[in-house]
Amino acid sequence: METKIRSLRDDIDKLNLEILEKLSERAKIAEAIGELQTQTGSSHYDPVREAEMLDALTAANDGPFSDATVKSLFKQIFQASMQLEQEQDKKTYLTSRSKDRGDTIVEIRGTRIGTGESPVLIAGPCAIESKEQVDVTAAKVASRGVTLFRGGAFKPRTDPYSFQGLGEEGLKLGRAAADAHGLAFVAEIMDARDLPAFEQYADVLQVGARNMQNFTLLKAIGQSRKPVLLKRGLSATIQEWVMAAEYLLYEGNPNVILCERGIRTYEPTTRNTLDVSAVALAKQETHLPVVVDVTHSGGRRDLLVPLTKAALAIGADGIMMEVHPNPAVALSDQKQQVDFDSFDAYLEATGYDKKLTPDRHEVYGF
Amino acid sequence: METKIRSLRDDIDKLNLEILEKLSERAKIAEAIGELQTQTGSSHYDPVREAEMLDALTAANDGPFSDATVKSLFKQIFQASMQLEQEQDKKTYLTSRSKDRGDTIVEIRGTRIGTGESPVLIAGPCAIESKEQVDVTAAKVASRGVTLFRGGAFKPRTDPYSFQGLGEEGLKLGRAAADAHGLAFVAEIMDARDLPAFEQYADVLQVGARNMQNFTLLKAIGQSRKPVLLKRGLSATIQEWVMAAEYLLYEGNPNVILCERGIRTYEPTTRNTLDVSAVALAKQETHLPVVVDVTHSGGRRDLLVPLTKAALAIGADGIMMEVHPNPAVALSDQKQQVDFDSFDAYLEATGYDKKLTPDRHEVYGF
Amino acid sequence: METKIRSLRDDIDKLNLEILEKLSERAKIAEAIGELQTQTGSSHYDPVREAEMLDALTAANDGPFSDATVKSLFKQIFQASMQLEQEQDKKTYLTSRSKDRGDTIVEIRGTRIGTGESPVLIAGPCAIESKEQVDVTAAKVASRGVTLFRGGAFKPRTDPYSFQGLGEEGLKLGRAAADAHGLAFVAEIMDARDLPAFEQYADVLQVGARNMQNFTLLKAIGQSRKPVLLKRGLSATIQEWVMAAEYLLYEGNPNVILCERGIRTYEPTTRNTLDVSAVALAKQETHLPVVVDVTHSGGRRDLLVPLTKAALAIGADGIMMEVHPNPAVALSDQKQQVDFDSFDAYLEATGYDKKLTPDRHEVYGF
Amino acid sequence: METKIRSLRDDIDKLNLEILEKLSERAKIAEAIGELQTQTGSSHYDPVREAEMLDALTAANDGPFSDATVKSLFKQIFQASMQLEQEQDKKTYLTSRSKDRGDTIVEIRGTRIGTGESPVLIAGPCAIESKEQVDVTAAKVASRGVTLFRGGAFKPRTDPYSFQGLGEEGLKLGRAAADAHGLAFVAEIMDARDLPAFEQYADVLQVGARNMQNFTLLKAIGQSRKPVLLKRGLSATIQEWVMAAEYLLYEGNPNVILCERGIRTYEPTTRNTLDVSAVALAKQETHLPVVVDVTHSGGRRDLLVPLTKAALAIGADGIMMEVHPNPAVALSDQKQQVDFDSFDAYLEATGYDKKLTPDRHEVYGF
Repeated sequence: METKIRSLRDDIDKLNLEILEKLSERAKIAEAIGELQTQTGSSHYDPVREAEMLDALTAANDGPFSDATVKSLFKQIFQASMQLEQEQDKKTYLTSRSKDRGDTIVEIRGTRIGTGESPVLIAGPCAIESKEQVDVTAAKVASRGVTLFRGGAFKPRTDPYSFQGLGEEGLKLGRAAADAHGLAFVAEIMDARDLPAFEQYADVLQVGARNMQNFTLLKAIGQSRKPVLLKRGLSATIQEWVMAAEYLLYEGNPNVILCERGIRTYEPTTRNTLDVSAVALAKQETHLPVVVDVTHSGGRRDLLVPLTKAALAIGADGIMMEVHPNPAVALSDQKQQVDFDSFDAYLEATGYDKKLTPDRHEVYGF
Repeated sequence: METKIRSLRDDIDKLNLEILEKLSERAKIAEAIGELQTQTGSSHYDPVREAEMLDALTAANDGPFSDATVKSLFKQIFQASMQLEQEQDKKTYLTSRSKDRGDTIVEIRGTRIGTGESPVLIAGPCAIESKEQVDVTAAKVASRGVTLFRGGAFKPRTDPYSFQGLGEEGLKLGRAAADAHGLAFVAEIMDARDLPAFEQYADVLQVGARNMQNFTLLKAIGQSRKPVLLKRGLSATIQEWVMAAEYLLYEGNPNVILCERGIRTYEPTTRNTLDVSAVALAKQETHLPVVVDVTHSGGRRDLLVPLTKAALAIGADGIMMEVHPNPAVALSDQKQQVDFDSFDAYLEATGYDKKLTPDRHEVYGF
Repeated sequence: METKIRSLRDDIDKLNLEILEKLSERAKIAEAIGELQTQTGSSHYDPVREAEMLDALTAANDGPFSDATVKSLFKQIFQASMQLEQEQDKKTYLTSRSKDRGDTIVEIRGTRIGTGESPVLIAGPCAIESKEQVDVTAAKVASRGVTLFRGGAFKPRTDPYSFQGLGEEGLKLGRAAADAHGLAFVAEIMDARDLPAFEQYADVLQVGARNMQNFTLLKAIGQSRKPVLLKRGLSATIQEWVMAAEYLLYEGNPNVILCERGIRTYEPTTRNTLDVSAVALAKQETHLPVVVDVTHSGGRRDLLVPLTKAALAIGADGIMMEVHPNPAVALSDQKQQVDFDSFDAYLEATGYDKKLTPDRHEVYGF
Repeated sequence: METKIRSLRDDIDKLNLEILEKLSERAKIAEAIGELQTQTGSSHYDPVREAEMLDALTAANDGPFSDATVKSLFKQIFQASMQLEQEQDKKTYLTSRSKDRGDTIVEIRGTRIGTGESPVLIAGPCAIESKEQVDVTAAKVASRGVTLFRGGAFKPRTDPYSFQGLGEEGLKLGRAAADAHGLAFVAEIMDARDLPAFEQYADVLQVGARNMQNFTLLKAIGQSRKPVLLKRGLSATIQEWVMAAEYLLYEGNPNVILCERGIRTYEPTTRNTLDVSAVALAKQETHLPVVVDVTHSGGRRDLLVPLTKAALAIGADGIMMEVHPNPAVALSDQKQQVDFDSFDAYLEATGYDKKLTPDRHEVYGF
């Protein structure tokens, strides 16, 4: 019996190599076709042609594989050939990490994100509510060495009756406060038609989780050169998130920062579930910087410090968080923003107090 | 022991009524304040005032409740009072079902959705690909009594390199095919700036799952009077979905149809998980018609018939599905669209063949 | 150019057929090996042999496919061959629907589940709490034609300090009440060591969601011949659920009823999300009866009627629900059980009043 | 107007204090009742009594609150009172962190988990497959300073036809290998009836994710004094996981180690989603040590290092991972186990090489 099996296995081994030979030959021809198609600008994928080939194969099939199995196997072969044809294209998937391309470093008014060295901190109130509120917060974060100041002027709110932000007036207040304290200004954009105002007042265009697949918006701001902070959608896969970044790069904007902000799961204790694996995989598969929004990930003040530690340990290039002079009376996110004392405690507990240089803006001559 | 407990319980009973009396008295004063605030247009919710009251209470608290419990109890009391103040507002939540308001019936070129009688069927290809494709499909569905024809001209695609639809040209082809066969035309809008073209060519503005919380888009089409088909987001809660509809009604567009299309879960066998409870709850909590997209819910042809049966049984006002002359070569959704023979079989298996009246467009004089 | 592509495509067509020929030849030999292995009782899958074949192939590979692609393609080929070897085994996947096997009908004291005709109703309290409670409930449901009476004696509770059921005493009370009113008795088993008591007192062994992958329990009750009601796990895939049933059939118990009871998702409005697709797919892929627990699916009384309609429309063979003489004081599931008046209303609203025959137990001579 | 509002607010302030007084008085009486109930061993929660009180209140209610609001407010008050009654009980929730109780440190043959100092490493093959395999792996991990050796003898497998482990023979092989190399032995228990064998051969009883709510098993091993490694269920909430630990402590076993192993989400790129927040919250809410299974969390070798870094940064007391002499031919988890070279690389990349002391077993005199 053993001998018999061994002999049959030798036959299989021979056939394996013969099949490989045929497959390689087929692949070379497919490559040649692919090149011709690229020259004529026609698509590599031709479903009609594929259907015809499968029909011919199942017509010729006498078993023992079922027609379905034959179809499935040849679809794999077609796909492998097509991947071969697209490998150059793939190398040019603009977000993909590849040998000949280093990490993208996004520079924002002197702060560089994605260097692999000291992580950045983006801090500020959830929403810009008044001149005074935005000014004291900017002063506070600047005094601790923060260089990137966030503050929402247009707020995406589930309920139409909730505070929707101060709009363009908020942008101006944010810009003024940032300028007064030598900060760069990060604000969320929700409408392509607001792009001119953001070009004027903001330094970073934030795309919120709800707009991650607002392709219209992505295409518009892909044509800007302003750095973009692209949040992962509420329940977007990593692949969908990276493809959203691909839209931006494809339109010509290379300054993209990915932002993990927790995903929607069944767990009720936290507002979202921070997906640290996504940070590791985004760093591994793309060349873009990745930051983590620890405020929205957990939705709890008591998780800000531990989530920051985990995010930095897994390789995040920075952290985003919300600070407010008086969270209890904030117009949004009351439970999540920290006050100034807690912000000081946060910096100490996370080690950020040693990573940030409070006198930096003097160095850079602001 | 029993007697002792009984006596203590009598004390509790008396205190219960005394507390109720005080609470009611408090509530009446709160109502009076609420009315004054409504007159002055100021917000009912004043977090600073609330913080002061809580401080006063915890300062006065001698136990046995902890300060945290006192705060928590009084927050409940404040909230209940505020709800009272907002009850009128609440009655005017525009999407809410209420006694004095019947079911919304949306009329589209003679077809009425939400009557509680015969369910509608919205059918057509995923994407409009060519004049011929859209025309033969329109002819097919019209011949079976369908009156609502769907077809995408602008396609939201995860990958920027996928077929993105024919754009405005697609809208024109869809309009022409619909007109030629006496159909109303349903198409997805992704950009507020395209609204004029949709006003001209489409009968129903579809908002896709990825744009359900694109508030910019919602506000824009809320100002149109075209019927809107609002899909539930990939992982939107029922509350978020209804609030997205509230944006539309708030802006002035009463012609809103909700569309359940499955939610994202861990189950890998189906593309999404059809949430029939959401259909029942949306019908129960709102006055809007609800339809179910059975094509995207399951993402499988073999589930179209059973999901349709379940959706109609639970009270859906209609079904949306995708039909294509040759799904195998479709430019999108190859696995989900049905061909014409399967469409005939679908109508029979679901009983739709008896619900639709093939000669209707003659009746209506198209 | 066109001509050139056409000529290359002809070459591909020829190669396709040659590859198919080799693959078929290979598959026949693999089948022969498989038969020999089945005779010797050795496993079809031999990872060492597979690793050697892949090494030989990549050693021989000169491109253009990368070694990884060659490995991947041949793994597909190996898998297809192995599937072929296992096809008989697969036909003997005991849960799989196949031509030569009709629907399984489980008979419980005269009630037949899975006939495709009138759906059954399983009703009774969440937990058996007292002689009186179980008796009046049994009387009530029997008076309405219900033949299957549920009631928990051993309760799986998240919190160790919650009411854990009356244990064996509860089983006896349930049995007595069932006997008094001509009912079959369904009770949840949590421990293999309790099987003798269940053999004596229960007619159906319910496996709860939390125990769906308690393989020890599955193996034990697979050796019984009592009908088993196997609930889907809290977040089990359909495949995992069917494989849990396979454990039961494999051990020799053919009397398995699948029970969908909602899955855990992010949606907070319902306790679980009823997955109707799972009902359709379980009916399609297996020959087992499928019932739906509408009480736990929604966790809301106001969803019992609509969920029942959807479940029956999609092909469920029956419904399970909870009835209690006074839900407000029940020791568990207060929010979900219905009282007797609501039970009457439920029967009417769902049409069950016409499907059940109240005098049935006389007919059957109880 | 302002003056009017201010005057009404003064009335409210007075009423607030009066309500507080009544509530406190009520709470004191409730406490007294609670004490009496504790003496008689009767439950604090009496739903019938509660229903009667609510009836009395709604009967007395003249508005402006609706009866529903009155019920809801008083339920809050009842609950707060009951929490007060249970506060001692609560302090004695055995898993809860409290002032008077330090961190639990579990000691296993000289290795201490939960000290807050150097994290432990639990390593070994997924399944024990043969004497040689388990021996070389034990030798390998011991040579690198690992002191806790894992290896499954009873394997929970979705498919009944998959390799189910060597059973008791596996336990013996694991014990022998552990002894030969001075290691403690961690093995998964699936059946309460196997406890005597585990008492004899294993040092740590692992409860797998699928058995986290197998309350029968929890009760049984709660009566052992062997340390237990309790994995979080596939989609268990943090609360459910902690309550499962409560079962163990309640039964008398204080030696419980919690193990986060990723939760089931929609994300397809990783097998599970590691929930680092759960680690932080479990450490914060309980006094038990928490370790992280990085092998099952990601299900990918390329995530072992980054997930380990994140887990340790957020405060995990240790890591569990799978090592196999030849993962490609392993009988389970082929894609996730690492070979010996990769294990060395892992230790270096995570810094574990500096945390473990390879000569430790000499120190401890093994």
